[in-house]
Amino acid sequence: MFFHRKELIQPVNVGTPSALFGTFLLEQFGGATGELTAALQYWVQSFHVEDAEIRDMLQDIAVEEFSHLEMVGKLIAQHTSKMDQASVFEAPLFKLKGGGPHFLDSQGSCWNAAYIQEGGNVVRDLRANISAEAGARQTYEALINVCEDEGTKKTLHHLLTREITHANMFMKALASMGKLDDPMFGNIPPDDTVKLVFNLSTGEDARGPWNDKPDFEYIENPEPQGGMPMPPINPDDEHHASGGIAVMEKPKTRKKG
Amino acid sequence: MFFHRKELIQPVNVGTPSALFGTFLLEQFGGATGELTAALQYWVQSFHVEDAEIRDMLQDIAVEEFSHLEMVGKLIAQHTSKMDQASVFEAPLFKLKGGGPHFLDSQGSCWNAAYIQEGGNVVRDLRANISAEAGARQTYEALINVCEDEGTKKTLHHLLTREITHANMFMKALASMGKLDDPMFGNIPPDDTVKLVFNLSTGEDARGPWNDKPDFEYIENPEPQGGMPMPPINPDDEHHASGGIAVMEKPKTRKKG
Amino acid sequence: MFFHRKELIQPVNVGTPSALFGTFLLEQFGGATGELTAALQYWVQSFHVEDAEIRDMLQDIAVEEFSHLEMVGKLIAQHTSKMDQASVFEAPLFKLKGGGPHFLDSQGSCWNAAYIQEGGNVVRDLRANISAEAGARQTYEALINVCEDEGTKKTLHHLLTREITHANMFMKALASMGKLDDPMFGNIPPDDTVKLVFNLSTGEDARGPWNDKPDFEYIENPEPQGGMPMPPINPDDEHHASGGIAVMEKPKTRKKG
Amino acid sequence: MFFHRKELIQPVNVGTPSALFGTFLLEQFGGATGELTAALQYWVQSFHVEDAEIRDMLQDIAVEEFSHLEMVGKLIAQHTSKMDQASVFEAPLFKLKGGGPHFLDSQGSCWNAAYIQEGGNVVRDLRANISAEAGARQTYEALINVCEDEGTKKTLHHLLTREITHANMFMKALASMGKLDDPMFGNIPPDDTVKLVFNLSTGEDARGPWNDKPDFEYIENPEPQGGMPMPPINPDDEHHASGGIAVMEKPKTRKKG
Amino acid sequence: MFFHRKELIQPVNVGTPSALFGTFLLEQFGGATGELTAALQYWVQSFHVEDAEIRDMLQDIAVEEFSHLEMVGKLIAQHTSKMDQASVFEAPLFKLKGGGPHFLDSQGSCWNAAYIQEGGNVVRDLRANISAEAGARQTYEALINVCEDEGTKKTLHHLLTREITHANMFMKALASMGKLDDPMFGNIPPDDTVKLVFNLSTGEDARGPWNDKPDFEYIENPEPQGGMPMPPINPDDEHHASGGIAVMEKPKTRKKG
Amino acid sequence: MFFHRKELIQPVNVGTPSALFGTFLLEQFGGATGELTAALQYWVQSFHVEDAEIRDMLQDIAVEEFSHLEMVGKLIAQHTSKMDQASVFEAPLFKLKGGGPHFLDSQGSCWNAAYIQEGGNVVRDLRANISAEAGARQTYEALINVCEDEGTKKTLHHLLTREITHANMFMKALASMGKLDDPMFGNIPPDDTVKLVFNLSTGEDARGPWNDKPDFEYIENPEPQGGMPMPPINPDDEHHASGGIAVMEKPKTRKKG
Repeated sequence: MFFHRKELIQPVNVGTPSALFGTFLLEQFGGATGELTAALQYWVQSFHVEDAEIRDMLQDIAVEEFSHLEMVGKLIAQHTSKMDQASVFEAPLFKLKGGGPHFLDSQGSCWNAAYIQEGGNVVRDLRANISAEAGARQTYEALINVCEDEGTKKTLHHLLTREITHANMFMKALASMGKLDDPMFGNIPPDDTVKLVFNLSTGEDARGPWNDKPDFEYIENPEPQGGMPMPPINPDDEHHASGGIAVMEKPKTRKKG
Repeated sequence: MFFHRKELIQPVNVGTPSALFGTFLLEQFGGATGELTAALQYWVQSFHVEDAEIRDMLQDIAVEEFSHLEMVGKLIAQHTSKMDQASVFEAPLFKLKGGGPHFLDSQGSCWNAAYIQEGGNVVRDLRANISAEAGARQTYEALINVCEDEGTKKTLHHLLTREITHANMFMKALASMGKLDDPMFGNIPPDDTVKLVFNLSTGEDARGPWNDKPDFEYIENPEPQGGMPMPPINPDDEHHASGGIAVMEKPKTRKKG
Repeated sequence: MFFHRKELIQPVNVGTPSALFGTFLLEQFGGATGELTAALQYWVQSFHVEDAEIRDMLQDIAVEEFSHLEMVGKLIAQHTSKMDQASVFEAPLFKLKGGGPHFLDSQGSCWNAAYIQEGGNVVRDLRANISAEAGARQTYEALINVCEDEGTKKTLHHLLTREITHANMFMKALASMGKLDDPMFGNIPPDDTVKLVFNLSTGEDARGPWNDKPDFEYIENPEPQGGMPMPPINPDDEHHASGGIAVMEKPKTRKKG
Repeated sequence: MFFHRKELIQPVNVGTPSALFGTFLLEQFGGATGELTAALQYWVQSFHVEDAEIRDMLQDIAVEEFSHLEMVGKLIAQHTSKMDQASVFEAPLFKLKGGGPHFLDSQGSCWNAAYIQEGGNVVRDLRANISAEAGARQTYEALINVCEDEGTKKTLHHLLTREITHANMFMKALASMGKLDDPMFGNIPPDDTVKLVFNLSTGEDARGPWNDKPDFEYIENPEPQGGMPMPPINPDDEHHASGGIAVMEKPKTRKKG
Repeated sequence: MFFHRKELIQPVNVGTPSALFGTFLLEQFGGATGELTAALQYWVQSFHVEDAEIRDMLQDIAVEEFSHLEMVGKLIAQHTSKMDQASVFEAPLFKLKGGGPHFLDSQGSCWNAAYIQEGGNVVRDLRANISAEAGARQTYEALINVCEDEGTKKTLHHLLTREITHANMFMKALASMGKLDDPMFGNIPPDDTVKLVFNLSTGEDARGPWNDKPDFEYIENPEPQGGMPMPPINPDDEHHASGGIAVMEKPKTRKKG
Repeated sequence: MFFHRKELIQPVNVGTPSALFGTFLLEQFGGATGELTAALQYWVQSFHVEDAEIRDMLQDIAVEEFSHLEMVGKLIAQHTSKMDQASVFEAPLFKLKGGGPHFLDSQGSCWNAAYIQEGGNVVRDLRANISAEAGARQTYEALINVCEDEGTKKTLHHLLTREITHANMFMKALASMGKLDDPMFGNIPPDDTVKLVFNLSTGEDARGPWNDKPDFEYIENPEPQGGMPMPPINPDDEHHASGGIAVMEKPKTRKKG
């Protein structure tokens, strides 16, 4: 069960509103790397994760992300609170759709659940979360880099910080399962090709710990092992009963040149 | 520059075609965790990653994923090569849209680039890739679990294996940067709240390495630190010049009860 | 700031799990008329609604909807908790993507923010909410009609009830502004065509309070009042400087028959 | 059966074309609140509404909306008819995709049917329509507020007016069923929680006709009534026959700290 | 300006309703190759096509497609008019969303304007239309092949026929411009590589009029002509003023193995 | 099986980078008419096309399109390689999401597979391809028209040229089947309405080879042939067992005025 207090989890104080910057902020409200993605991803995982301790962690962080979504929304509300005619040209989105946040990204694309990665296995879920935190942190850095308002920057800096905290929590949880640096998980072990690495893009070829002994066996000049595939057989070739509709002679497929 | 040989990178031999299972396989052709997502994600990253060695790794793996996409496509083509009237009810997708693969998932939703996570920083990219590999591996396990054809299973097992290989490569690359177990990256250090963990979902509260000393400071009963937010100021409240259109008296906002 | 307690706002007790019915339930978790739509719609409105009292109402209801989303998620989790091989054919979505809820609808389409209607004006927002509640109530009735588990039905009945409560609250709020039965709002009064009704679909023409005196003036045989529109002028017709690329003679647009 | 006359239902005369304003106008051609949404929503409802009189009303209005879509399209065609090099920067959409209207909104997002609300019950449909009209009216006001061309403004003013007319028609139709101010409809009555209102967002709590006696019973400090939910049971835990693929020992889920 | 008569352009008489077949029919109501796509594509083209004669043709066909959309909608309405409990399992879409047509395809995906191809040039538009007609015809054939109701089949046969008629009209219009068999159009002639054909997929290489003399020059073993591309330069490398936020030392990008 | 060489198929040399123009270029990387659409469309067709010769052609062209996608990506990478503070306002997409290409169009909308047209029949596929090439060529012309960098223009000119080559190849292949100027294909012949053309949009009516004798029979004043459609029968009208939930009296549908 959810509860809400109208006070914010951390302060939001915009000094100089900028509707244009408000548009950029949508990236973290209704964008792919934003707080809604994080909140819903961690929370939906909590419904299928069996381990009660991990579930508690996911729910703690999800609820914090909802409060961060609220902070980003308040930032946007403040940045769009003093729009005038000039803003039409720099932030038409708010002039046409109304001030305040919307579940759109900075390009006006609707948030959608394809941004979320989850399902089937807690290791997979936690890896998805480390990725989500990295994306969120990256966007906060980009926003700070183009931000000119100190109050806004301070809030964004806090939000960036918390993504690092959460990433650390997810890493520690994965490490506690031995899965931070072990690629394998689940119920099916790999087959005997697991150490092979194929040099499929040639030129500026490089070697490093990701494709070298002892963990990997590098195939310099890989060749197809699968032979020619079976040709397609058109499933519509059969003679359908056509219910009173005369069936055409099939056209010759080609006049050879 | 790309080249293609019509032989497959690994064999694909379906014993008993099943159009229904063909529908399930779409998940890895045109679905969120599928080979197209992997191929395009790693490849698009290679355009902005500065480090030539990591770029080479991304391109090697991306090109392999294109060849895996081809294998999944061939699996689907074979599973839909002998559809009969019964298939209409168990796999209408192929009856209506034609046999063979399509860039749809098992639910008939179009593949879209919202599945891709990339941009801005190589550490973020590599974390996204470890997540992508985990999702792909998970779906291959799910497919194997419901697969009844040995030939198909063998191919899926190989594809599952390669996801583990790639995950291992990405982990080794991240480790070589010291970023596999360090949550921080990029140019902005965290602020002083980075160790705080908030107990925001109460009940069955659990403690573990992800929210305990020495890495974290646990706040048992967090309180709002942000105070009441500023109220919204409607940007449309101003008196617009209305170009000949009479402006209404603003309606009283409410008859108090 | 959000808080969460792990106890549910109302009980969820599934008697006989059915993964197929779990699929249907997704309609109210990640579907157009579902609880996520309601929660996010009312909450995002609260950022731009100026009236503190209406804002409080919107937030109270939004937070309840988050708790309802949790209930629907728990229903789905219970319905998918005992899937066996048979479920592959009746609920492949969960077999492939994992048990528990996902932000998809019953057809496997991702939730997206195009389902949300909000922005610019509190009257518009409240009308959108009455519509949203009607859609949610309708889907709950449809689910109850095809549900065979008494425990599930009881929960769905409660959720249906709450949509009626919320609709009533939104109606009372609109009525308090005099806007429940007055079509006009905002700052621009209508022009003098506001009473005209056009009979544009002929056959079985009907008259009723929606197109009759005294509120309306019915035009039996409407005629175009706008004349012929201006023809398009191709903006690409101009002679562009083409930077070294020879410009073709424009092809004759047609050999007249 | 549809018929079309090339004359417009009402005049469209743009004085000073502006490709930038043409971009804004897309909001009502291919946007969420635009004429396509209205036309298709009312028309698709007419296929399932049983009451022939309401069906006639829906079809009359739908056909008018198609004619309004045509008017908006003509506005856009005129606003994009004289684009020059300068327009690349203010309206690249038309420079790249061609002049004239497209089924995109002002942000370049494709129109999609998720904007439509309909189905299952005429009361639900009519409430959806009142909401749709409110959204359309709101966007027309926003467009008029940023419009500098008198001819365009006159057309937009007419279109805004008609949304009020249609809203009035839908309200009168709902009132004729006794459903304009009665939240209940359909075949299932509410349970006994229908009068409860929960104070779930605390701070600036307000009371009004929407949460007060006699229609409502206000719960100041709501508590969870649902107890702890059942924990998830992983459906993948069963021992699958794995068809020749060795099953791994399940990894220990965690090394306790 | 649009007009509508409630009689259908051609008869629709379903003998034996099947909600499952109703689901399939959605493909031509709200699906990619359906009548809505055709109607809107041709109609939106008419706004930018300069040639009044072609514009008239586009509008004539568009209006017919709206009437065909109505026929498909009526087919669906009849097929879903007698749903019983059995229908839940074979056509849950209608049970949950209501009977009658919706702007969804047979897989439950929302219609969206990405299905439409148009813009910028009449030759491009007409080629898009020949493609659209081919897609529509193909789906009608697929539907007829799985249809068991004679009345439905007769209607589908008529609709299939009309797609051939329209394709023929578009072909004749293109031929009248000399553009049915001439690949070039627009204002920029090709460069001198226009006759080259590259053998980039090797194995089962074939020659035919599409890659042979005199129209083409076949390159058996193509080589890269573009050299190594410039490496990416990270645009975020610059030293941003960071507004009070301390800038981290950039982490070493890698510990060499 | 795919192979990649890091050299480009043709040179890419941007003289003066412009992040704004980089945004426009996204149209051909992640946009509807772009190289990804072409590459994936032709390649996915190759899985179901039975004719080995046509399949070889499709694969040859698909692989070239992947190399073109790479060229467009490199153009974008170069145009975004020197972004400074000024670019935030002209190309925020890259500032927020990172430099280099993304699978988005110039408006920031995700690429999605709804752009692809394929399936069921080789004639349909080839017509779809001629359409795709026309769209791609049109966008390249639009890009050249607004491009100010000679190096970029040269590359775009080559890419435009190749679309003409491919269109020519597809035309020659269709002609070899006798299907370039014959609207019919597939297994079902048209019914006897195939020559009728309906004058459904009146005003500025035109005649030409597309609606005139001998190929067509023009119906000047078409009338409905289908009679009044059957009224909808609400499938929810039946009396459902309601599992303990009392069924309401159905509300009177209307108080007649």
